Amino acid sequence: MRRTAMLVSMVLAVAMMAMAGIRDDIKKNPLKGGSHYFAYPDSALPALTPAPEGYKPFFINHYGRHGSRWLIDGNQYVVPVTELEKGERNGKLTQRGRQLLAHLRTVKLASTKRLGELSDKGAEQHQRIARRMYENFPEVFAGDAPIDARSTVVIRCILSMQNETDMLKSLNPNLRITTDASNHDMYYMNCHDTVVARLRREVAPLYEDFRSRHLNPKHMLGVLFTDKKFAADSIDGLALMTNLYEVAANLQSHHAFDGMYMLDVFSDDELFELWSCTNVDWYLKVANTPLTDHRVVYCQRNLLTDFIEAADRALALGRNSATLRFGHDSVVLPTACLMGINGADFSTDDLEEVADNWCSTDIIPMAGNIQLVYYRKAGSDDVLVKVLMNEREATLPIATDIAPYYHWSEVRAYFMDVLADMPR
Amino acid sequence: MRRTAMLVSMVLAVAMMAMAGIRDDIKKNPLKGGSHYFAYPDSALPALTPAPEGYKPFFINHYGRHGSRWLIDGNQYVVPVTELEKGERNGKLTQRGRQLLAHLRTVKLASTKRLGELSDKGAEQHQRIARRMYENFPEVFAGDAPIDARSTVVIRCILSMQNETDMLKSLNPNLRITTDASNHDMYYMNCHDTVVARLRREVAPLYEDFRSRHLNPKHMLGVLFTDKKFAADSIDGLALMTNLYEVAANLQSHHAFDGMYMLDVFSDDELFELWSCTNVDWYLKVANTPLTDHRVVYCQRNLLTDFIEAADRALALGRNSATLRFGHDSVVLPTACLMGINGADFSTDDLEEVADNWCSTDIIPMAGNIQLVYYRKAGSDDVLVKVLMNEREATLPIATDIAPYYHWSEVRAYFMDVLADMPR
Repeated sequence: MRRTAMLVSMVLAVAMMAMAGIRDDIKKNPLKGGSHYFAYPDSALPALTPAPEGYKPFFINHYGRHGSRWLIDGNQYVVPVTELEKGERNGKLTQRGRQLLAHLRTVKLASTKRLGELSDKGAEQHQRIARRMYENFPEVFAGDAPIDARSTVVIRCILSMQNETDMLKSLNPNLRITTDASNHDMYYMNCHDTVVARLRREVAPLYEDFRSRHLNPKHMLGVLFTDKKFAADSIDGLALMTNLYEVAANLQSHHAFDGMYMLDVFSDDELFELWSCTNVDWYLKVANTPLTDHRVVYCQRNLLTDFIEAADRALALGRNSATLRFGHDSVVLPTACLMGINGADFSTDDLEEVADNWCSTDIIPMAGNIQLVYYRKAGSDDVLVKVLMNEREATLPIATDIAPYYHWSEVRAYFMDVLADMPR
Repeated sequence: MRRTAMLVSMVLAVAMMAMAGIRDDIKKNPLKGGSHYFAYPDSALPALTPAPEGYKPFFINHYGRHGSRWLIDGNQYVVPVTELEKGERNGKLTQRGRQLLAHLRTVKLASTKRLGELSDKGAEQHQRIARRMYENFPEVFAGDAPIDARSTVVIRCILSMQNETDMLKSLNPNLRITTDASNHDMYYMNCHDTVVARLRREVAPLYEDFRSRHLNPKHMLGVLFTDKKFAADSIDGLALMTNLYEVAANLQSHHAFDGMYMLDVFSDDELFELWSCTNVDWYLKVANTPLTDHRVVYCQRNLLTDFIEAADRALALGRNSATLRFGHDSVVLPTACLMGINGADFSTDDLEEVADNWCSTDIIPMAGNIQLVYYRKAGSDDVLVKVLMNEREATLPIATDIAPYYHWSEVRAYFMDVLADMPR
């Protein structure tokens, strides 16, 4: 599957250095410990490397996750309230426990008929992403460029798309934007793969085992309950911890809850382990590992194929254009693994190694997105491409003499090799 | 329910004159015989009456249907092919029958995984509506006006909204547009009413009876089949006719089928009767008739309430704004009946009277929409309102001294009376 083993090793080494600090990252910024609920981090984006002499961007090949949203599973709002109410009825809540319960009730009520929906912050994330895409690559969006925008059939993705297209039209009214959200496109926009579904079921016990070894709600229970024995006997500590984590991690999705921080009830260790379990869960479900026969990552083979074909069409078109796709974390993450972005193709069969080597949160915060930006130069057939992972320049596991740019012909050949290497 | 019986009579008389010509309308423009598949007619919109001295528009209160779409029921694409194939297998198709079958196969294939989806023409209809809304009422969309856009949770409605908001942002990048498509709002965006559902079931036999008296596929069968006896014995003429009507009527929804006209297989009489049956079906389902105890029209009481509340909020806000709602024909039509727009509150228990007095197609072509446009004058509390039905100035069944404008206080009082008159 890989072209140059040495290069892969180098990339991995760099990636490992970058990821070794996740425990510290979360300590410094507990919101990042929210895993896939982490709000899109765009307050301090690094500057982009200018294009090589004479090269101009002419095409963006994009897949992005919907922005911040409400939780999908309503039980996650309910269970923490139910568990804390046991303590309330018995007079066993600490002051922090009582305050938390009040906040949880407010959040639960506000979630009524909102499950899974895009939040206000989610809409704004996409407006900002679109604005920067336009400002960073004005040549792509110049004139009456055709912009092909597609979403999965899930409403939060469609509204994410709408927030980007609204912004693009406001910046250049002449753009010819077409939009769609059709079952017709779901085979590549969010492919359902029965082999992958089976493999995921088979490794589910590995995750349960990892979780049982890594999660312990002792500190959290001490923060919330006045009586250890009561908490041990009457509270489902693990259910409270894991469901409260979902709510607490996702509070950052809503302006309305800006003054309602909850992650403080976890110790640094608890929060890291909650993150780590989620990270391992993702690793088993979508990453490149012998534990799932190196196969689950190929759930996105159709999307990778569509990236290649869209680029082929854009080159044939001979003018500036963009292909913008809007979908899910469960698509962005395996696609990054399949492409090998920033060492996301890291492979291990030891789940204890995952946290230090593979960080799902760097790839799929809310609104996480992959942008391949294509450049050409008058009089040259050598099309260049730059990979942006969440708008940061990123690496692929192949050689390049013009980093952070790559020769598209070589990237395309690499992607074709990856596709050809799909395990049967 | 009505304030002034005489006024109602006058309005009805005018409405009847306007509607008496539907048979001629359809003869001249068979596409209009397509009923709710009629593409939004905006090529020759009448000029709007200038506002009274000193008045400026400051708020638009809107509900619009999604634009042109694919058929929702896939069987409607299948049945005509299946029936015509019987003729093909037996060598009994005319040349027109063979050509039609080829076209039907093309359309059926193209509909794969597209059922119910917004079409290319549907997207364009909303872009044009938004552009005219902006150009006709620039004061409403000036500055950083808050635009509250909401859709039902159905994708074709969300994409209709997106096409309007994209256009509005392109015309004024400073607009503060918020969008939503949430189950939270469905109680008024597309209310489910169990009483209405029961009443509709109860009158379904009246429709079946009307249809059996009015539909006869004889002419159509003669156009398509060479052998009358074969057609009579082997073809389900009524199933072919009614399903083919759906496909033929809806071809106007797609650019791709511009060269593929099918309505010619029906005689003028057949097409009128197909339209008339659809019109009666709508009348029974949503209109103000003793046949359904004057109750089904109240399926939109929550939406009418929201129109009133949105206007109250806009007045309290004290600045320019708009409330844009996107949904379905099954909402626009009863809402027009409930408001009494252009005599749509016509009441009869004789279904034979409906066609000459009540034309659903004037209200719910694709993208059909109601706009209440509010005006005020510096130094005056007398807010005026103008009703636009599909962007044409329309009447309400109350008196006014400044037609086509009304005093909002009187319209509001009338709407409140209507709501208070809901049968129990």
